[in-house]
Amino acid sequence: MDTMTLGDVFLSEVLGTATLILLGAGVVANQVLAKTKGNSTGWVLITFGWGFAVFAGVYVAFASGAHLNPAVTLGIAASGAEWFVDGQIAVDATSIAVYLAAELVGAFIGAVLAWLAYKNHFDATEDQGLKLAVFATGPEIRNPIWNTVTEIIGTFVLVYWVLVSGYTETMIGPLGVALIVVVIGMGLGGPTGYAINPARDLGPRIAHAILPIKGKGTSDWGYSWVPIVGPSIGAVIAGLLYAAIY
Amino acid sequence: MDTMTLGDVFLSEVLGTATLILLGAGVVANQVLAKTKGNSTGWVLITFGWGFAVFAGVYVAFASGAHLNPAVTLGIAASGAEWFVDGQIAVDATSIAVYLAAELVGAFIGAVLAWLAYKNHFDATEDQGLKLAVFATGPEIRNPIWNTVTEIIGTFVLVYWVLVSGYTETMIGPLGVALIVVVIGMGLGGPTGYAINPARDLGPRIAHAILPIKGKGTSDWGYSWVPIVGPSIGAVIAGLLYAAIY
Amino acid sequence: MDTMTLGDVFLSEVLGTATLILLGAGVVANQVLAKTKGNSTGWVLITFGWGFAVFAGVYVAFASGAHLNPAVTLGIAASGAEWFVDGQIAVDATSIAVYLAAELVGAFIGAVLAWLAYKNHFDATEDQGLKLAVFATGPEIRNPIWNTVTEIIGTFVLVYWVLVSGYTETMIGPLGVALIVVVIGMGLGGPTGYAINPARDLGPRIAHAILPIKGKGTSDWGYSWVPIVGPSIGAVIAGLLYAAIY
Amino acid sequence: MDTMTLGDVFLSEVLGTATLILLGAGVVANQVLAKTKGNSTGWVLITFGWGFAVFAGVYVAFASGAHLNPAVTLGIAASGAEWFVDGQIAVDATSIAVYLAAELVGAFIGAVLAWLAYKNHFDATEDQGLKLAVFATGPEIRNPIWNTVTEIIGTFVLVYWVLVSGYTETMIGPLGVALIVVVIGMGLGGPTGYAINPARDLGPRIAHAILPIKGKGTSDWGYSWVPIVGPSIGAVIAGLLYAAIY
Repeated sequence: MDTMTLGDVFLSEVLGTATLILLGAGVVANQVLAKTKGNSTGWVLITFGWGFAVFAGVYVAFASGAHLNPAVTLGIAASGAEWFVDGQIAVDATSIAVYLAAELVGAFIGAVLAWLAYKNHFDATEDQGLKLAVFATGPEIRNPIWNTVTEIIGTFVLVYWVLVSGYTETMIGPLGVALIVVVIGMGLGGPTGYAINPARDLGPRIAHAILPIKGKGTSDWGYSWVPIVGPSIGAVIAGLLYAAIY
Repeated sequence: MDTMTLGDVFLSEVLGTATLILLGAGVVANQVLAKTKGNSTGWVLITFGWGFAVFAGVYVAFASGAHLNPAVTLGIAASGAEWFVDGQIAVDATSIAVYLAAELVGAFIGAVLAWLAYKNHFDATEDQGLKLAVFATGPEIRNPIWNTVTEIIGTFVLVYWVLVSGYTETMIGPLGVALIVVVIGMGLGGPTGYAINPARDLGPRIAHAILPIKGKGTSDWGYSWVPIVGPSIGAVIAGLLYAAIY
Repeated sequence: MDTMTLGDVFLSEVLGTATLILLGAGVVANQVLAKTKGNSTGWVLITFGWGFAVFAGVYVAFASGAHLNPAVTLGIAASGAEWFVDGQIAVDATSIAVYLAAELVGAFIGAVLAWLAYKNHFDATEDQGLKLAVFATGPEIRNPIWNTVTEIIGTFVLVYWVLVSGYTETMIGPLGVALIVVVIGMGLGGPTGYAINPARDLGPRIAHAILPIKGKGTSDWGYSWVPIVGPSIGAVIAGLLYAAIY
Repeated sequence: MDTMTLGDVFLSEVLGTATLILLGAGVVANQVLAKTKGNSTGWVLITFGWGFAVFAGVYVAFASGAHLNPAVTLGIAASGAEWFVDGQIAVDATSIAVYLAAELVGAFIGAVLAWLAYKNHFDATEDQGLKLAVFATGPEIRNPIWNTVTEIIGTFVLVYWVLVSGYTETMIGPLGVALIVVVIGMGLGGPTGYAINPARDLGPRIAHAILPIKGKGTSDWGYSWVPIVGPSIGAVIAGLLYAAIY
């Protein structure tokens, strides 16, 4: 990969996002599905699991900058950056579209793989809501406006951190963003399950709708706009604030 | 930010402390408020959550040294250091005042944001003490002198570590202080909830008093001096011991 | 160890894999055996414990590349790599055999040591299944094909990460693979207990069969091929995909 | 501290070991004493807490090599090393004695501070065994020979890792040994509570015997030799094996 093409970006982000969602959806499956070894472990499992899922995915997609998340792509664009990959992939409508498409496709593939890994346990689970929870986020108290506020705040923290993190000298690499995702889950995931990533929610929700999951229920499309709109707003605010300060 | 001004310091510490308190207060909200996904997870959630909240905040405020805490500001001053930011921001009464003010304002803002993120859950919670706990610390056994002793010891560990940590070669950056905050919570947070930071307690307590939180009770001002006095004493002891040894 | 010989490789991988399995089997013993201090702690203990067991083992076997796992050895070979240790140990049938033998012997030794460390607790435990669980993995829902699928997916993630991780610049060293093992356990360990390593399962299973464990039951040889076949397939797929992309 | 003297070593190891034991004993106090915020959190709290307590202590005692543990001092000596601090503190009977004395004094001081931090909670706790547990280790199944075996194995892993860790290139610094202590606790701490450090047990046990702890019981001197003898044996074996291989 001497010079990145948009095709390389697509492949890289698909693989990275698939890794993220395979592991992240898998953590939820381990927590909620019947007869798993991690059943009902709790929020520490969920938050470290998703954080380290990001850790894994970022390594896989290092070549393209490892966005893995439309909010990151939009936030970088909103910050006024000229390049997604220095000197190789410029920020423009085409490249943004490639990133977003790859993130969505990767998230879909990851969700399918998580379903395969937990096939027996989906079959053994009665509750339709638990089966959906492996794929898509849902709020504990349904209130679209406030749920959107929560997603805006959580995504703002993520994207603003991504934008400023390069100024702090460390060599921990992808562990930094992993721990940020852990703490967003711990601190801001309580109300809505912290999508903070439109692809993380939409891709698996589509997988839930399409896959022949035994005894599945609704895919709850009525809520599906919240984890798209909230994170998008939070990302743009982060990008603009960054541009104003730096 | 080629040359830091006191205005830059103020903005930096406000943003960093707000990030810290948003995530930290959010972790408590997730733990104690009704119907959250992390409800009653336990002390591992609280301690890792606050530690990684510091991690996030330090990146945001890297330019000003990321004190985020009046105890750190006072401890550095007590150690006899000449500069808060090398060659740019000298240690003097004015700069100390700017740091302290920014930390308090940032903590207030972070608490307001945490309230917004958990708005539905504050409304759904009956217990007034749990609502206050999101904002301010309180002891399990109320005994102001011994509670102060506990805060002195915990803050001493934090500030002394901050002062000596530069001598140990690593490249983990802000993860170091994050893990110190984790272990102070695990080891010394049991009696009082480890304020170890006057702004972390006072800023959110003021927010609790001001915000229109549904069904809120007292802001417990009778205890509010302990998390100011204890950490301040611990910080000064740490600074003086450091000055005596190094 | 100026120049590595195959004898050095053997010793290094034996010691490293023994360290891994001593600590990993010990974590399970702490979780499941009677009267331990960690009894029934849960999946967070299991997953961090196995991850940090890898962390320890990798340091011990650094000189030989710290495979500790036949799946890693096979995956590197399948990727078309020429060297296991640059300029010293070439990838060929002999060296592969040495790695595999050392990994199996080390895993056996580690399991024996874990038994000695928990001798009193094996004696105090009635349940034969729990005693076996310290040594070998077993599925929660027994379905060899799907159990194999789960092991393929989990091992694929591990080996693919190992192959690509060198492209991402960090200085966290063995902590990287440790956290990958943590998240594979959290995300993909729910159905089968994530062997993701044929030696990790077979070596201790042989130890279980041989050791004079008080009141032990079957070693469940009927399942023993799954944690060999699944990880081997997953590793080869990872190696081939890596070769196709890079 | 341009040139280290044995007095510098003493001060450094006292401060570092006091930090370690203050935080480590504090974690146990938080877990077992009445009315603490972390009461009955479990083994994840204990193991991460002690690991990060080591993390803190190593920074404080960086100048003297941060042994904090007679087993480390003995293991380095048994390995045939010539220097405790390169070019400044040679390995000889005098320097060994200084390290051991400092470690014991530091552990005693740390235990006293932990008692002060949890004074109210010691007073509120009825169970004498729980009060002792804050200070000293005790086995779940009392069997001195096998308890010693467990301590030998655990300490071997610690000291062998310390000796070999320098060969693996990372920049995580004291976090490495911290995570090793975490996993030893998770994997090998179940039977005896993993003293793996004679000073960690003896210093606080003396403090327990001396301090005016309300309603305290026996200091269990009958067991006190196990966490001295076991770790010492394990350390020497590690040093000799290291010398044989490297």
